[in-house]
Amino acid sequence: MTAHTNIKQHKHCHEDHPIRRSDSAVSIVHLKRAPFKVTVIGSGNWGTTIAKVIAENTELHSHIFEPEVRMWVFDEKIGDENLTDIINTRHQNVKYLPNIDLPHNLVADPDLLHSIKGADILVFNIPHQFLPNIVKQLQGHVAPHVRAISCLKGFELGSKGVQLLSSYVTDELGIQCGALSGANLAPEVAKEHWSETTVAYQLPKDYQGDGKDVDHKILKLLFHRPYFHVNVIDDVAGISIAGALKNVVALACGFVEGMGWGNNASAAIQRLGLGEIIKFGRMFFPESKVETYYQESAGVADLITTCSGGRNVKVATYMAKTGKSALEAEKELLNGQSAQGIITCREVHEWLRTCELTQEFPLFEAVYQIVYNNVRMEDLPEMIEELDIDDE
Amino acid sequence: MTAHTNIKQHKHCHEDHPIRRSDSAVSIVHLKRAPFKVTVIGSGNWGTTIAKVIAENTELHSHIFEPEVRMWVFDEKIGDENLTDIINTRHQNVKYLPNIDLPHNLVADPDLLHSIKGADILVFNIPHQFLPNIVKQLQGHVAPHVRAISCLKGFELGSKGVQLLSSYVTDELGIQCGALSGANLAPEVAKEHWSETTVAYQLPKDYQGDGKDVDHKILKLLFHRPYFHVNVIDDVAGISIAGALKNVVALACGFVEGMGWGNNASAAIQRLGLGEIIKFGRMFFPESKVETYYQESAGVADLITTCSGGRNVKVATYMAKTGKSALEAEKELLNGQSAQGIITCREVHEWLRTCELTQEFPLFEAVYQIVYNNVRMEDLPEMIEELDIDDE
Repeated sequence: MTAHTNIKQHKHCHEDHPIRRSDSAVSIVHLKRAPFKVTVIGSGNWGTTIAKVIAENTELHSHIFEPEVRMWVFDEKIGDENLTDIINTRHQNVKYLPNIDLPHNLVADPDLLHSIKGADILVFNIPHQFLPNIVKQLQGHVAPHVRAISCLKGFELGSKGVQLLSSYVTDELGIQCGALSGANLAPEVAKEHWSETTVAYQLPKDYQGDGKDVDHKILKLLFHRPYFHVNVIDDVAGISIAGALKNVVALACGFVEGMGWGNNASAAIQRLGLGEIIKFGRMFFPESKVETYYQESAGVADLITTCSGGRNVKVATYMAKTGKSALEAEKELLNGQSAQGIITCREVHEWLRTCELTQEFPLFEAVYQIVYNNVRMEDLPEMIEELDIDDE
Repeated sequence: MTAHTNIKQHKHCHEDHPIRRSDSAVSIVHLKRAPFKVTVIGSGNWGTTIAKVIAENTELHSHIFEPEVRMWVFDEKIGDENLTDIINTRHQNVKYLPNIDLPHNLVADPDLLHSIKGADILVFNIPHQFLPNIVKQLQGHVAPHVRAISCLKGFELGSKGVQLLSSYVTDELGIQCGALSGANLAPEVAKEHWSETTVAYQLPKDYQGDGKDVDHKILKLLFHRPYFHVNVIDDVAGISIAGALKNVVALACGFVEGMGWGNNASAAIQRLGLGEIIKFGRMFFPESKVETYYQESAGVADLITTCSGGRNVKVATYMAKTGKSALEAEKELLNGQSAQGIITCREVHEWLRTCELTQEFPLFEAVYQIVYNNVRMEDLPEMIEELDIDDE
């Protein structure tokens, strides 16, 4: 008997309580309505990656989902061709996700309203600053039974204060909206390297019932892949807050990396960042759960992967090494994409200033001051030094 | 007014409750006894680094501590010279911490019993498998008023089950023992790159009173440096468990890195690892606090830095790339030092097997099986796949 067999045997200890694995979840969903039609709104590297994941699943579970998935593309010229045409003929997003083959049932569509026609599930995956404009165009064209998942990272700052993007979608379009967030650097998910994610969704008041409406099981079937493990929970606020704020922490890690301060310093920043994320959640979204931040992929794991790579670290490292501004760094490095932390740290600062609470979040505030007010990054440790309770 | 000044001003919001910063803590300790004499037992890279930190502080706070710090060195020949003599003349540990200048008040001593003569504070910093032998030699030579801090990572497995090393020291030597643990890759601390750590200590029943005995303030003065920020707490169990088990998680991260699976996979491993660390703590050391694991440097931050670099990751990555065994990898890479995860994963496995609980800790068990039973690392995701509660 090999050791490996031993492990399998240990799992048998659970035989008293047979547990179905995710890949068999399909067997227990009996759809009592026409299959769900899905549209992905957005086609950056993360949008295209999620569209790939979804199209693989709609093809596989064709009794649950319409196999064809539409992806709205903000069209642009690549040489003489439209990006949309390239995606639909060569099945690659050559600009934002090169060298990754996309499923043929994923159809790019440059017309926003046409792309969502007949859709039951909308998956938003665009830079969050474009959301208000997109939502405005959609108003009056989305049926109330439609459900949405936001893969966006950030907040909406309006008259109501700081608002989750999922709540913004719900308010503006009158549809239930959950969120997807996790330790998911897009290029790695696109290459089908093993990773995990968290989907959060709460059943709406007008939930149509099992087999007739989107629920946790349907969302698992829509997003779970053998290389992309999905955990579905209720805490939309928790995963959205973590997903937005980790980008601010990642900027600080990028500064530390650019200054050559090493792994200990980066880990210290992540620890402090996790603490401020939890504090922000408890203060402004008390419905979020502390466990989400340290147990879920969308919490601590996303923080870790975002702080070890990704756009925000890249931009901040470049700022530290060259002395250039955030916007210059973004322009030079990101091929037209955004480092969300640049916007989020300003939104967070504005909100905290309104509440007169900036001093309660010294790391977030330090990042804002470095990015927007030329404060020296070398002063980061001093700025974030914790109050020394022991000495009081 | 610069933006930086603004930040300073925000800090002034705390003026109602004046808070002293760590570096001013010295002013509030009035010693009512002869200064404390400190000995560091151990001289690997971490032992030497902590001895350097301590010697800098004993020199600085000479009314609290005897400036001279003894460091016990397991002596060995470097060419024709004894390592001890090299340290005492050239003030560098050329074998384990090359190119780092050590304070002249740090004195290497090859004689264990001589090194602890008159010491009031013992700081243990040796590979944990050597502890029983060291402790045996010390028995009968340590006065009851002596206090200790363990910087060791691991457990002691004996007739009492799995035991914290600090408890082991207390049981065997009859002295109170706390712990120091944090996001502290030794070479970076040695180079004085900014980092944080956690010290945990509980006052003993025979505590002699303020200014006469070791307490949180004294420990802060002993370990805190401008580049090494110390937080002192009570939870010895929490930081010890986190410090021991993170090395097992780091091996798994090394496997993932060696197989080229990327940052998302490594973050997923760290998330799962943090979950198993917390579960282990709650199950076997219910006095430990969940917050310690996700709030302290010794918790999540140490996990992150250990999984991003350090010996265990190095060894495991090498195993993945070359197919060599853990012991071969250790021998070829570590210049005579240990990767503690190799021993800890076996201790944890033996303990969990005794309790028939291996299946509750799939990541720890997978690491054990890969290291000791040639289980394929490629099967890691399958081995650690979480039970899918949603589908029950």
